[in-house]
This record gives sequence, C-alpha cells and structure tokens, in this order.
Amino acid sequence: MTLSIPTYEDVAAAGERLRGAVTETPVLRHDALDAIAGARLYFKAECLQETGSFKLRGAMNRLLQIPATKRVAGVVAFSSGNHAQGISRAAKRLGMPALIVMPADAPAIKVAGVEADGAEIQLYDRETESREAIAADLADARGAVLVPSFDDADIVAGQGTCGLELSAQMAERKVELDHLICCAGGGGLTSGIALALEGTSSATKVWTAEPEGHDDWRRSLAAGAVQRNADGTRSFCDAILTPQPGEITWAVGARLFSGGHAVSDAQIGEAMRLAFRHLKLVVEPGGAAALAAALFALKPEQKGTDIGVIISGGNVDPALFARVLNEG
Amino acid sequence: MTLSIPTYEDVAAAGERLRGAVTETPVLRHDALDAIAGARLYFKAECLQETGSFKLRGAMNRLLQIPATKRVAGVVAFSSGNHAQGISRAAKRLGMPALIVMPADAPAIKVAGVEADGAEIQLYDRETESREAIAADLADARGAVLVPSFDDADIVAGQGTCGLELSAQMAERKVELDHLICCAGGGGLTSGIALALEGTSSATKVWTAEPEGHDDWRRSLAAGAVQRNADGTRSFCDAILTPQPGEITWAVGARLFSGGHAVSDAQIGEAMRLAFRHLKLVVEPGGAAALAAALFALKPEQKGTDIGVIISGGNVDPALFARVLNEG
Repeated sequence: MTLSIPTYEDVAAAGERLRGAVTETPVLRHDALDAIAGARLYFKAECLQETGSFKLRGAMNRLLQIPATKRVAGVVAFSSGNHAQGISRAAKRLGMPALIVMPADAPAIKVAGVEADGAEIQLYDRETESREAIAADLADARGAVLVPSFDDADIVAGQGTCGLELSAQMAERKVELDHLICCAGGGGLTSGIALALEGTSSATKVWTAEPEGHDDWRRSLAAGAVQRNADGTRSFCDAILTPQPGEITWAVGARLFSGGHAVSDAQIGEAMRLAFRHLKLVVEPGGAAALAAALFALKPEQKGTDIGVIISGGNVDPALFARVLNEG
Repeated sequence: MTLSIPTYEDVAAAGERLRGAVTETPVLRHDALDAIAGARLYFKAECLQETGSFKLRGAMNRLLQIPATKRVAGVVAFSSGNHAQGISRAAKRLGMPALIVMPADAPAIKVAGVEADGAEIQLYDRETESREAIAADLADARGAVLVPSFDDADIVAGQGTCGLELSAQMAERKVELDHLICCAGGGGLTSGIALALEGTSSATKVWTAEPEGHDDWRRSLAAGAVQRNADGTRSFCDAILTPQPGEITWAVGARLFSGGHAVSDAQIGEAMRLAFRHLKLVVEPGGAAALAAALFALKPEQKGTDIGVIISGGNVDPALFARVLNEG
C-alpha cells in the first residue's frame, strides 16, 4: 500500500474546511519568560482550543471528509485522551456514533471529557495490550471508520491549521519566526505545522520536544532513521508517550524537521509552574514539553532568535496540577 | 472640587491611545459552562492581559497623559496588587520611577510582579492604617503623581477599553450581548465597560458581581445611594475588597448599572475549578466573581440570554490555587 503523504496544499485546504469549526487560539508572550530563555518566545496557546487541545483540528478535518453514507456506522479511535476528546467532539457535532479505546490509566479529566460528548469508551492495559489491534477489531465488527491519532494524511493536515494560524498571527506582528518548537508523540502536530510553515514561513526551522527517555524523534532525526523508545520508560507526559515516529509523520519529519529537544519531567514541571505564574494558562505535562525546551534547553543557534512555541494542551487532573504547583 | 466624570468619548479616546500598548485578550466559550448557567456565556479572558489583569489598561491610559516634564518625579499608587502591577509596568515602559503602597497580606505573586518591574514597595496594615493617607503623604513628599486605583476619569476610561474590545469581538460573532457581568471592587472596570457599551452596544445591561458581605455595589444600586461594607468582613477575593463605591464610579454606575450579584467564596472556588477544567485559565478569586455569578446566581431575566462575563485577573499564589483545586 502506498502511503499518502500530505503536502502544504492539504493543510491549506484543511484551513478552508475548518473555518469557523475550530477556535483561533491566541499568541501570547512574556518578558520574564524571554529572559529565562534568552530568546523571544511566541506562545501559541492551543490549550485554549475547544476540547483543551489541538486534536479537534485533525479530528474535524478527518470526519468532515467521511461521506454521509458512511457516517451512520460511526468512528473508532484509540487515544490516551486528547485525540479521544477531539474525535468525540467532532463526532458529536456531525451526529456520528464514536467508540474510543483508551488506556486504563488515562487522566480522569480526559475520560470525563469523552463521556460528556456521549462517546462509548473501552479501556485497555497500556503495558500488555495493543490498542491498535483492539481498535481495528472493533472498527471491523461495526463497519466503522478507524481514525488513527497521527499517522493519517487528513489528521496531519488538520493539525497543520494550527501552524497556518500562527503564521498569519506572526505576519500581523511583522515577525518572521526563526524557529518553531513543538511537542512530539507520534508527530502529527509537528508534521502538520512543518507543512504549514513550508508554505507560509519557509525560513522557520522546525524542532520537536520530548520527555527524556521518550526522545524517539530526537534520536531518529539525529540518526536519519526511525528509532524506537525502550519499553517501560516512564514520564508523566501521558499525551506524548508514543513508541516511535509514524510512517507518514516520519516521511514529513525526515524532510522538514531540523532536530529534537529532550527535557526532563522536572523541567516540564517547572515549565508548567511558569506558565501558571506568567501566562495564566493551565498546561498539561505533554503540552508543556516545548515550553520546557524553549526555557531550559535551547540550542546555541536558537539563542537570541524569534521562536514559536506550541503549548498544545491543558487537560490535566486537578490533583496532579496541584502537586506540580506545590513542588515549586 | 467638581468631579470629572468620564464619558464614552473618553473610553474611545483611550482605545486609540492604547492601540498596540495592551494585549487584545480573547473571548472564549464552553458548552459545559453554558449548560451549568442556563445561558450563553462569552468569557473575556482579561487574565491573559499583560501583568495578569486588566489594570494595565487604566494605568497606561493615565500615565501616557502625564506631561513629560512631570514624569521625572514619578508616580505613587496604592493597591492590593493588580493595580500595583499595572502601574509598575506602565511606569517601567515610560521610564518613570514608581512607589507602590501595598497591604502587608498582599499575595506574594503580586508583590513579586511589582518588584520585577523595579518599583519601590511600602507595606501597610490593611486593618489599622489608611493606604490613601500614606500614599498621599508619600506623593506630596516627592512631588510625584498619585494615581488612584479606580476613582479617576482616566483610569476608568482606560479600563473601559476592555469593553470596546469585547463589543468589537461580539460584533464579529454577530451576537449582541443582552447582559454583561463584571466583578466590582471600586468599580473602575465595570464603569469603564458600561461607558464603552453605552457607545457600542447600548442594549446590553451591565451588572456587578461581588463576594457576599462585600456586596456594597449590589446594595448601593438597590438602595439608590452609596452603601458601605461592614468593617472586618473577610473574603479570599483580595482584589475586590473595597469598602464602598467610589465617587466617580458611583456617578457612572448609578446611571448605567442594572444591579448586582453577590456570590459566596465557595461558589467562587467552584468557578475557579471550572475555569481550570474547561477554559484552561488560571483565575484568581476576585477575577472569578463574575464567572461564579454567571454560573450560580443568574437573575431570572438573565436566563437563556447572551451574557458577557469578565474574567478580570489571574494573579493567585500557587499554594492557594492548589488548595482550591484540592477542595473540588
């Protein structure tokens, strides 16, 4: 089977398709954070997107392209929670049934978000079961469309609309970004944004940010070939614990990404506290990875430059957020 | 001395003056919050304003009108923290020295914000000392301009630019607000917004929101004459514990406000948790009063309508925020 690799034109088409269907999230900045980073940082606050993360973009772009006759059987997705909420919300809007396969240890706030949109939930064990296999079997059984969380051309193109918005917002400010840092699990958001920037801000270099031990993108980009994370490595960044880059996202990333950052959970916690203090944003651990990279792990070539930083999600349980605040 | 009562034209002039000097904060909404309220709520996220509250608007509008020759001696202000940060930031931008009189029990995050902008701080005891007298003496001694936190025509007009923005943002959405709810301490923000709406959305009714026991605006509006709060009443809404409406703000409010809401600290805490969960915003207690009123204390005539809700600030200490989260 030939892979369908999305292009800038697919992202531009998604931008047209999603007009009015997603929130244009604001770009924020703060002197104190610039001082810590030693660079000028522009934060794309995607945690303010409906459903609390960017995932609604890809989900809407994908589901809107399912023909009306196929919508009746609904969709199946697997996700640690943010894609789950994006799909549930998109399905609800389009009147489609949705079944979501989620890990048993998914944050309660994410499970509650899915339930509130009326989707069915099937839990699985992250350590012993294959969510891909479970979801594929369920989709087969009900004739539903299986919507992967990142390795899909329409999903990537949809996430890329975040990059289109950022480009337009930076053009209004008359600033061209030198760099863009984005958290990467499967790499759907970073790939989509890289395609968006290829067409609208081609001088901007795109970089991933990941938790230490889950830095498959950083190592893959350094090696020039897909690398996999060791099994059993832990991080509190539940949203971005994907074992390795996807096929489609790697095809985009190998061509368009400049490299990757790895940050510790401690640095991510500090980034969450700084976003609380200075930006007044609730950011979940995975959503703070790029912020942590910008604040604490810039490359020499990134110092003193204009850097876009994607704050990708804010779905974090209150007890965990309170613990992170109290560790400061 | 004749009071200078600001008008819509003053707010419109402030809007021109502040172009590019303050952040245009986004308007957010959420289905789950609409369902709780039984109305369509539009949240003006002023906690995302630079310095973490709307206060930069009034401070910039006031300081920009101080003649260059008078700027050398600087400014003096008294404030529990948000006005302090607005004045400190505005003074720093204009190269003016600033001295702020703050209560000894002000939140540490607010004191730190003032210090970071290089202003001098003098602490006083909220229970036994008069901040007005201390600040007036200090301003006299150094020939500095005393900038009150709300009872000043330029401050009111500056805060009103928040209402101008909201009107324009709602016009883009093709929604005319039936009601607007805003927290009130001295009433500078609510007054300014009421003037802005008088000129741009005259059908919108304006209401205050206050903590129970500090509902001087609600009682004053009901009585048609200024009422004062009982001494010693406590609330965790440090930002809005003003003893009574100001003279200028009362002149505006008596003419333009429809009435007031009183909410309990427990309701405000729940509003903070719901803003965390659904909006991904960090909201301080005083900044959540209008949200609490919209969610839990709507008047019958407000049910089922389009309501603007001002979320005015997000400067809350991490330990207090963590405690509120854990009480949920």
